[in-house]
Amino acid sequence: MPGSPFAWIDEQARARRRAGLVRTLRPRPADSALLDLAGNDYLGLARHPEVTAAAADAARTWGGGATGSRLVSGSTELHADLERELAAFCNFESALVFSSGYAANLAAVTALAPHGSLVVSDAGNHASLIDGCRLARGTTQVVAHADPEAVRKALQTHTGPAIAVSDTVFSVDGDAAPLAELAAACRASGAALLVDDAHGLGVLGDGGRGAARAAGLAGAPDVVATVTLSKSLGSQGGAVLGPAHVVDHLVNAARTFIFDTGLAPAAAGAALAALRLLRREPERAARARAVATALYERLTAAGLEAVRPDAAVVSVRAPSPEGALRWAADCRAAGLAVGCFRPPSVPDGVSRLRLTARADLTEAQIGRAVDVVTATR
Amino acid sequence: MPGSPFAWIDEQARARRRAGLVRTLRPRPADSALLDLAGNDYLGLARHPEVTAAAADAARTWGGGATGSRLVSGSTELHADLERELAAFCNFESALVFSSGYAANLAAVTALAPHGSLVVSDAGNHASLIDGCRLARGTTQVVAHADPEAVRKALQTHTGPAIAVSDTVFSVDGDAAPLAELAAACRASGAALLVDDAHGLGVLGDGGRGAARAAGLAGAPDVVATVTLSKSLGSQGGAVLGPAHVVDHLVNAARTFIFDTGLAPAAAGAALAALRLLRREPERAARARAVATALYERLTAAGLEAVRPDAAVVSVRAPSPEGALRWAADCRAAGLAVGCFRPPSVPDGVSRLRLTARADLTEAQIGRAVDVVTATR
Ligand SMILES: Cc1ncc(COP(=O)(O)O)c(C=O)c1O
Ligand SMILES: Cc1ncc(COP(=O)(O)O)c(C=O)c1O
Repeated sequence: MPGSPFAWIDEQARARRRAGLVRTLRPRPADSALLDLAGNDYLGLARHPEVTAAAADAARTWGGGATGSRLVSGSTELHADLERELAAFCNFESALVFSSGYAANLAAVTALAPHGSLVVSDAGNHASLIDGCRLARGTTQVVAHADPEAVRKALQTHTGPAIAVSDTVFSVDGDAAPLAELAAACRASGAALLVDDAHGLGVLGDGGRGAARAAGLAGAPDVVATVTLSKSLGSQGGAVLGPAHVVDHLVNAARTFIFDTGLAPAAAGAALAALRLLRREPERAARARAVATALYERLTAAGLEAVRPDAAVVSVRAPSPEGALRWAADCRAAGLAVGCFRPPSVPDGVSRLRLTARADLTEAQIGRAVDVVTATR
Repeated sequence: MPGSPFAWIDEQARARRRAGLVRTLRPRPADSALLDLAGNDYLGLARHPEVTAAAADAARTWGGGATGSRLVSGSTELHADLERELAAFCNFESALVFSSGYAANLAAVTALAPHGSLVVSDAGNHASLIDGCRLARGTTQVVAHADPEAVRKALQTHTGPAIAVSDTVFSVDGDAAPLAELAAACRASGAALLVDDAHGLGVLGDGGRGAARAAGLAGAPDVVATVTLSKSLGSQGGAVLGPAHVVDHLVNAARTFIFDTGLAPAAAGAALAALRLLRREPERAARARAVATALYERLTAAGLEAVRPDAAVVSVRAPSPEGALRWAADCRAAGLAVGCFRPPSVPDGVSRLRLTARADLTEAQIGRAVDVVTATR
């Protein structure tokens, strides 16, 4: 009998160990003493009592799961309410909820890039958009990061359906895409624009209504946005927002919609409660941005190299992959959880600490976070 | 300015309307009078009070969402408990939980089919496995449905890592894969076997411990299984089960694990409660199978053409796509919800009604379902 079919896995594991790039899971307790600047709960809503009570109510009212595809048994009136309120909040005609932001991105890209079409994709886009491009029947052209001129040129070469795809806020460095210029580049060629507002919803725009609305693009007939329910809305899930006929098309054509179980009622309920909270307390969005700016200013004043945050993500350059890992571990030992982004999860091979601002951080917590990061550098 | 970039969508919509293949969402109320034989809640646990209470408790204890990737802030002790108990229940060394079964399948196929490898995929496999094949760096060879000889031949042509991929129970017709023969075909070439037990967990094997365990394959060094938490476990999410080094590899290499927010605590809590219930009440699995057999026997006795169910899915042949649609609508009008599978969601172009057995259906409900389906044919 031949050897183990997974011998190649052990070789890769050895290479990872040699490079110091092994990833391991560290399950956390419900009540950790760590100050959390690692998660994406930008508005501090994941553990808000209204949000968790809504999750609990939804589970009791609707059940633990949706029981089937949204097209069979998995669409509840709760999903419909969430879709209606999300679309209205972000100023789009229609919304469609998915089991994750990842699934929403796969759906949007694949359904909007048919055979013969061109997808122009920013080099810094999120993995889920990249996987969407790889799954789509159209041809993908990757262009330089945040470069509307490159998008314009790529689109000019093509006849037939075309779409440009970009994060609104890039997840690693927290920098914003030049949305107005991207839209202009698309319109010059009659192409569509798809933006992933995972890190913009709840943070950017008036009252956190998102980057597309802030750029005056929400509701336009040639613009589609995706969002996640897992960051500012403190839950799980994703959505595609766009013109009604585009959403109808996704219902009929998007495989990660048709062949996936609907989002669990508890997650839909939590996201809807968070959305209503944000509508009532729009100042949370500005506060998240202000916290990010404060973190950035104090860290750079202390001599660290960071990227000026356009939203709630603050990226601090680390000397090396091992240096980043050690730095993050030292922060943790000092009571602060921060993200650590290393190859192969970074597009450019540069390792960084990734700090996330939360609207509910106090001045004292901001000060403590800055002290720990600078003291452990 | 050029015309709408989505004009091609409207053309496709017109073609769908002409063919009578338009899909629309029908949100359901929390308490429907319909008898539900459409969902995949095979054990009747989605609305079990212990399951919904566990979902509610988890939301209150852990928050509405996991707040980040499992590798950053999104791994809780609840996820770890669920992984430990799932692995033990199904007799695998290790388990890794994902935000959906779809994501688990994308992860398993892509991470286990590196550049230069061969994936041999059953023609009837679920969309998520197919998308996994399309995303994977390896080469895919699609083989005839449920044909171990074809798998054996395909594997013989290849040197380098190879894996055969199959649903254990096919979602459309409810027929079971020949797992023992598939494993033998793989072993003859030193290939791995990946089985998607979405419709087997909770239904097949001793006490619902799944198809891999029933076939004596669970825990083997060359076998990996995926499961969903969204069917028998009445929740949302998915998992990959396998040898510990394979699960470690997924933690390091699977993009839908690394770049996706962790499963919401409420969903993890609900699935864990359902799993514990099933362990305590193992007879639920046999009851789901018995209900399916009863449905099949009575429907065929009444002259309908159905596929003998190997698990809890009963597929009844419909005369045409429009015939299936009308039949399902007539069932609904008579108080019975059934699934309706039509092109393009069926691999062979054959439309069917899809009935799902539930362990908690009473004899009277089974009789009523059979009466409605036969009376409306
Ligand atoms: C830019 C971006 N898009 C999409 C996603 C995927 O969303 P989710 O985690 O809700 O699946 C993420 C993060 O996880 C993200 O950072
Ligand atoms: C065979 C099979 N695999 C995977 C999935 C995907 O699982 P989930 O819906 O939990 O994402 C499904 C159904 O949805 C399925 O039927």
